Amino acid sequence: MAPTKKGILERLNAGEIVIGDGGFVFALEKRGYVKAGPWTPEATVTHPEAVRQLHREFLRAGANVMQAFTFYASDDKLENRGQALKITGAQINEAACDLAREVAKEGDALVAGGVAQTPSYLSCKSETEVKAIFKKQLDVFVKKNVDFLIAEYFEHVEEAGWAVQVLKTSGKPVAASLCIGPEGDMHGVSPAECAIRLVKAGAQIVGVNCHFDPLTCVKTVKMMKEGVEKAGLKAHYMVQPLAYHTPDCNCQGFIDLPEFPFALEPRILTRWDMHQYAREAYNAGIHYIGGCCGYEPYHIRAVSEELAPERGFLPAASEKHGLWGAGLEMHTKPWVRARSRREYWENIRPASGRPKCPSLSTPESWGVTKGHSDLLQHKEATSTQEMKHVLEKQKKVKSSA
Amino acid sequence: MAPTKKGILERLNAGEIVIGDGGFVFALEKRGYVKAGPWTPEATVTHPEAVRQLHREFLRAGANVMQAFTFYASDDKLENRGQALKITGAQINEAACDLAREVAKEGDALVAGGVAQTPSYLSCKSETEVKAIFKKQLDVFVKKNVDFLIAEYFEHVEEAGWAVQVLKTSGKPVAASLCIGPEGDMHGVSPAECAIRLVKAGAQIVGVNCHFDPLTCVKTVKMMKEGVEKAGLKAHYMVQPLAYHTPDCNCQGFIDLPEFPFALEPRILTRWDMHQYAREAYNAGIHYIGGCCGYEPYHIRAVSEELAPERGFLPAASEKHGLWGAGLEMHTKPWVRARSRREYWENIRPASGRPKCPSLSTPESWGVTKGHSDLLQHKEATSTQEMKHVLEKQKKVKSSA
Amino acid sequence: MAPTKKGILERLNAGEIVIGDGGFVFALEKRGYVKAGPWTPEATVTHPEAVRQLHREFLRAGANVMQAFTFYASDDKLENRGQALKITGAQINEAACDLAREVAKEGDALVAGGVAQTPSYLSCKSETEVKAIFKKQLDVFVKKNVDFLIAEYFEHVEEAGWAVQVLKTSGKPVAASLCIGPEGDMHGVSPAECAIRLVKAGAQIVGVNCHFDPLTCVKTVKMMKEGVEKAGLKAHYMVQPLAYHTPDCNCQGFIDLPEFPFALEPRILTRWDMHQYAREAYNAGIHYIGGCCGYEPYHIRAVSEELAPERGFLPAASEKHGLWGAGLEMHTKPWVRARSRREYWENIRPASGRPKCPSLSTPESWGVTKGHSDLLQHKEATSTQEMKHVLEKQKKVKSSA
Amino acid sequence: MAPTKKGILERLNAGEIVIGDGGFVFALEKRGYVKAGPWTPEATVTHPEAVRQLHREFLRAGANVMQAFTFYASDDKLENRGQALKITGAQINEAACDLAREVAKEGDALVAGGVAQTPSYLSCKSETEVKAIFKKQLDVFVKKNVDFLIAEYFEHVEEAGWAVQVLKTSGKPVAASLCIGPEGDMHGVSPAECAIRLVKAGAQIVGVNCHFDPLTCVKTVKMMKEGVEKAGLKAHYMVQPLAYHTPDCNCQGFIDLPEFPFALEPRILTRWDMHQYAREAYNAGIHYIGGCCGYEPYHIRAVSEELAPERGFLPAASEKHGLWGAGLEMHTKPWVRARSRREYWENIRPASGRPKCPSLSTPESWGVTKGHSDLLQHKEATSTQEMKHVLEKQKKVKSSA
Repeated sequence: MAPTKKGILERLNAGEIVIGDGGFVFALEKRGYVKAGPWTPEATVTHPEAVRQLHREFLRAGANVMQAFTFYASDDKLENRGQALKITGAQINEAACDLAREVAKEGDALVAGGVAQTPSYLSCKSETEVKAIFKKQLDVFVKKNVDFLIAEYFEHVEEAGWAVQVLKTSGKPVAASLCIGPEGDMHGVSPAECAIRLVKAGAQIVGVNCHFDPLTCVKTVKMMKEGVEKAGLKAHYMVQPLAYHTPDCNCQGFIDLPEFPFALEPRILTRWDMHQYAREAYNAGIHYIGGCCGYEPYHIRAVSEELAPERGFLPAASEKHGLWGAGLEMHTKPWVRARSRREYWENIRPASGRPKCPSLSTPESWGVTKGHSDLLQHKEATSTQEMKHVLEKQKKVKSSA
Repeated sequence: MAPTKKGILERLNAGEIVIGDGGFVFALEKRGYVKAGPWTPEATVTHPEAVRQLHREFLRAGANVMQAFTFYASDDKLENRGQALKITGAQINEAACDLAREVAKEGDALVAGGVAQTPSYLSCKSETEVKAIFKKQLDVFVKKNVDFLIAEYFEHVEEAGWAVQVLKTSGKPVAASLCIGPEGDMHGVSPAECAIRLVKAGAQIVGVNCHFDPLTCVKTVKMMKEGVEKAGLKAHYMVQPLAYHTPDCNCQGFIDLPEFPFALEPRILTRWDMHQYAREAYNAGIHYIGGCCGYEPYHIRAVSEELAPERGFLPAASEKHGLWGAGLEMHTKPWVRARSRREYWENIRPASGRPKCPSLSTPESWGVTKGHSDLLQHKEATSTQEMKHVLEKQKKVKSSA
Repeated sequence: MAPTKKGILERLNAGEIVIGDGGFVFALEKRGYVKAGPWTPEATVTHPEAVRQLHREFLRAGANVMQAFTFYASDDKLENRGQALKITGAQINEAACDLAREVAKEGDALVAGGVAQTPSYLSCKSETEVKAIFKKQLDVFVKKNVDFLIAEYFEHVEEAGWAVQVLKTSGKPVAASLCIGPEGDMHGVSPAECAIRLVKAGAQIVGVNCHFDPLTCVKTVKMMKEGVEKAGLKAHYMVQPLAYHTPDCNCQGFIDLPEFPFALEPRILTRWDMHQYAREAYNAGIHYIGGCCGYEPYHIRAVSEELAPERGFLPAASEKHGLWGAGLEMHTKPWVRARSRREYWENIRPASGRPKCPSLSTPESWGVTKGHSDLLQHKEATSTQEMKHVLEKQKKVKSSA
Repeated sequence: MAPTKKGILERLNAGEIVIGDGGFVFALEKRGYVKAGPWTPEATVTHPEAVRQLHREFLRAGANVMQAFTFYASDDKLENRGQALKITGAQINEAACDLAREVAKEGDALVAGGVAQTPSYLSCKSETEVKAIFKKQLDVFVKKNVDFLIAEYFEHVEEAGWAVQVLKTSGKPVAASLCIGPEGDMHGVSPAECAIRLVKAGAQIVGVNCHFDPLTCVKTVKMMKEGVEKAGLKAHYMVQPLAYHTPDCNCQGFIDLPEFPFALEPRILTRWDMHQYAREAYNAGIHYIGGCCGYEPYHIRAVSEELAPERGFLPAASEKHGLWGAGLEMHTKPWVRARSRREYWENIRPASGRPKCPSLSTPESWGVTKGHSDLLQHKEATSTQEMKHVLEKQKKVKSSA
């Protein structure tokens, strides 16, 4: 609120906890403003009131960062994803910054501008070409004077490093966040090595976001931290995971789960899962703690409530939330009132209400599936051969019996 | 948009489908504006922008009804639930009507005013006293000239009948909706008999809302319809269920499930479950189809999309949704693209990602049926005491913060 | 052991509990002596030592009845089931009686001879023809002087009644047991009505066996008992259920479950489930308590142990079993020792170890499936039509936006 | 059958598959002849017919090894486990060898004598003392002229090595099998290193048995094989896993699962799981393939059937089993007949019928790693005390019965 808000690095250097916001694309998809598939953020221009409202809810929930809703708003992505409206990436990015700033002013939050992996990199464009794309987005962030920058949602540390290099030219603090798990990036670079490269590229904050559930992400950032420390380097750490339980993911994360993206509901974390996540992240030495796909404002509020003792205050939205279910103390049914305590919610094993569904899925991918179907065909053939062979034998056994 | 919108009965008489909105208390609890436990709607006064935004999202999702957010806004409830703010029920109700009207004007929606069961009934106040409470709310609805009235969320058909009688005095169309399942109301009156009594009391539309999952609610309304038809009466039918799978409920609904209200996440319906629900409701002859607790805008959009052939149009928010996953057609991974088809999503059995959790729970209740009312009365009193105590504490915490 | 063993009716009339044995076809299938599919008992002739051993194990477990292993040993069935060996039904039945008698002499057990439903009835042969089949089996039982007779595993009460009439001609006590659930027999005759007809036909003991899990079977026999008592008749009651959990069965029982018969393992009841079953059966006034498919000797031992207070003794095999897990008291690990108590095992919710499997299945049947596949085809067509229609509209909406 | 049966090493050297039997303690516990807790094999003396029958069933199922039922039949164990009968270890071991030999003669099977880990080792007795215990058992095996020897069920490779050294003195072939998983033995020695040590100690066959499910065991033996090959050594490999799914085990195996040993039913493998296991074991180069706790004869038959093409014949018990469900081809219901094919059973995901139970459990342990041995030692003592107390009580109950 003060004109001289502390910057992201001042906060982290002072040992403060910085709470991030949640993922906008999934939240706004459910609200009707983002299309699953393209996942592009043109709503900043077409429906600013919806974007503003979501910012406000995360602010009330305790977020210290209003990340401008610029995900996949690079021109190459917009074109690639069939963004048919006559809106340019620059327009979207500018509107996003304005909305984030407008709401950030209402509380103790900073504005971040972000870039993410590009289709250009995947289609093997040159470093120069890829960097040009980041530069175009950065120009808007500089013009709009965001407080810091995030290179996030990168599957390849190489591209993330390029992004960091571009963002560093602005002189603003830079955070770098990969969407990887404990097995490392898509070229097999370990989390530790990834983190070292990003720090060396100039990122002051490193971590992971999206693709995996909170505990997997915390584990991955711990590996990063150990790597950075072993290398004698210094950094701050961030984590912004999914709000979905994904113990069955392979190395490519939740996109390969058969439920992605339209049947993830049974995996949604409860607020109590968030308490556990926030505590484990904090204990691991990660001080920038937020969320990504699947996060609703109440998830971020739970993070804020868990860390209220450390932060010294509750978020605004806790005026509408009894800690650990305390709001139920006034319920008319005594057995519901009995739920108004921490021990109850910490130990609940919530049922899915779906007895015909499994607990875990098998991740898909065509590398596997394609070979597999050949394999199956072959196996089938073998099997028929075997069967004939075996049945022959069976007859002999019978006749000799 | 037209100045002469068709009324609710004109629509239903013409065979049109009327799509309801979703439950506001649960949706706004997640957004940080309603407190679980009291569940009261003072946000209409304190945070109108949040209420307005939610109305708008349901409108975009295809809802034809903007139900003024007046749930539990009777003065006896507000007092009972510890509504500590200096806001009267009348203020809340008026603001709610204004917000609903403002958004309804933006599309083809009607404004409904609603009353719900009262603590006065449960604590055995007289018919006159209970009716006076409904009358007080009705006065606001008449002053604000809502399009029709709903008596909803009643566990006892007797109290619902009283509500209908009061609402009928306005001359406006009246819908009556109980929160019961196939076993009937809390006094054991069957759904068929409940419906007959409500129609005889003057309700033109009857049905159920809340407490049970969609298929259970459709089943219950079918029983109502059969009863009404057998009795030679006529009515329209409505259904506004939970967005949670609750096959393990007892007769008192989801409140007795151990997960209520803070660990229901694994039970949330997917959009594809909503397609099935909408189709089954429509096939059962129910033409007013909406939602209650747990519904997010995308759930209502799914209802609208399933019934688009019958209605002849898609809702506005479908501009951000490929039918049956069509938005994935442009995904970079072929195995994700392969999910862009109806058959895939109709047959998915989504995993919970929670292998240490069961599929079903055992509903809780103490003492259960016998002496239940007595117990409730006694406990209600206790609860108010406790509540005061807790609010005292809360104040201290706040003032010391 | 005494030369003058009490008969089945004397025992039941005296209020004694009679413990039955378990199903032989499933147990011997697992041991390698019965073929799943035909399910015929030629092992009585070809491998008597295996049949004898199983009798002995059930005797040790506390069974008071050695049921001669004559299931499906009618000539029409043997022929129908492709019993290719040159062994007649009479040979099998005689050997079965001898084995049962041999072991029964080793303890306090009676020998029962049984008949079951015939393919002749299903293929609409006449009452005379069907009765002739039962008579042929009965002749062996009379010759071998079994202690009592059981007409069991009938899906149609009509055929069961014919069997009872034939068996009654021997002058021996007759028990009649249907393989039905609470919905009644395959012609829709209720359990109550079925029981009345069987008692009127002359059965002194009535009940159910096979096809459903223990609690479902107990429930069904309770319905029989209520019917018989309401009709002013008198009978004893028996129950011999599956040792599989089958809450997802339809009216035709476990045969329609997709897991039948080769993947039922995850459904097998624990010994603790058996304690609950035995107690509920006894409390329901059912005094002849045994088992059918899936029962292993330890399941019957658990029934005997639960009812040891009423019977006044433990079965022989309890010398090799600590009650309620007491055998673990000497385990080296303290946390395993902590399992040596009743409360632990009564409340355990055993995990399946199969996170990719569901909790419940959908029963199969072609009545449904066949129509269903037509339906799906039709639906698909509709869907494509709808899709085109809707997509048309979508385009219009977009262009007007 | 021939007087000059090929020995175990001749078979393995010739590339033949050797199929083991299943675990006797669990199978005979269910049949009423072994007490869970002590798990001692006095039934070889008291109930030889039951032990003989089980041998026969495994022989019919295709087993090439009749392992004398001598598990935990060392005198120190018998005493420790409260073996109150006046039967010595030598008597039990001799009877066990005779029974195994008697049945082995009926088919193409060898007799193996086995020793297992001792309480003496756990209570820190000297190498000399522990070896003396093995020697005592070995004396019986030599006297009875078993065909080969197995040192099995060792949690510590050190003790297993001592056993191998003792067994080697006989001049007979020696197999060594640990009850460890991929994390290695209880002192943290890796599977590879364990195998190397055992081979160096003189074992010609190495592998694992018990404690983990089939796929985990195959994985562990693969690690052993890689280690042995990397070390330039040579050995044959064996695997005899649980017949329970245990993906949730910690390093100490199924004993720490809350379901052990009385609620493991939902985890039992189907015969189709066994086909997969047998194939994976064979493909991994493991040629001695059998089972341990939980195996019933039909499980071993499934192993034999899967490997029938390689072995060139089906086991005797396959006369009572249609391959891949072929026995259902004659079922009266068409939808059951439709299950008589490989593809159906290979892909089934069997339901547990237990919707209130989870899929996975959390292994238990107290204090876990640190000071674990101390704790165990102390508790061992306590346990013996407790055990005496309990046996006292039991005697009183029995004598008063």
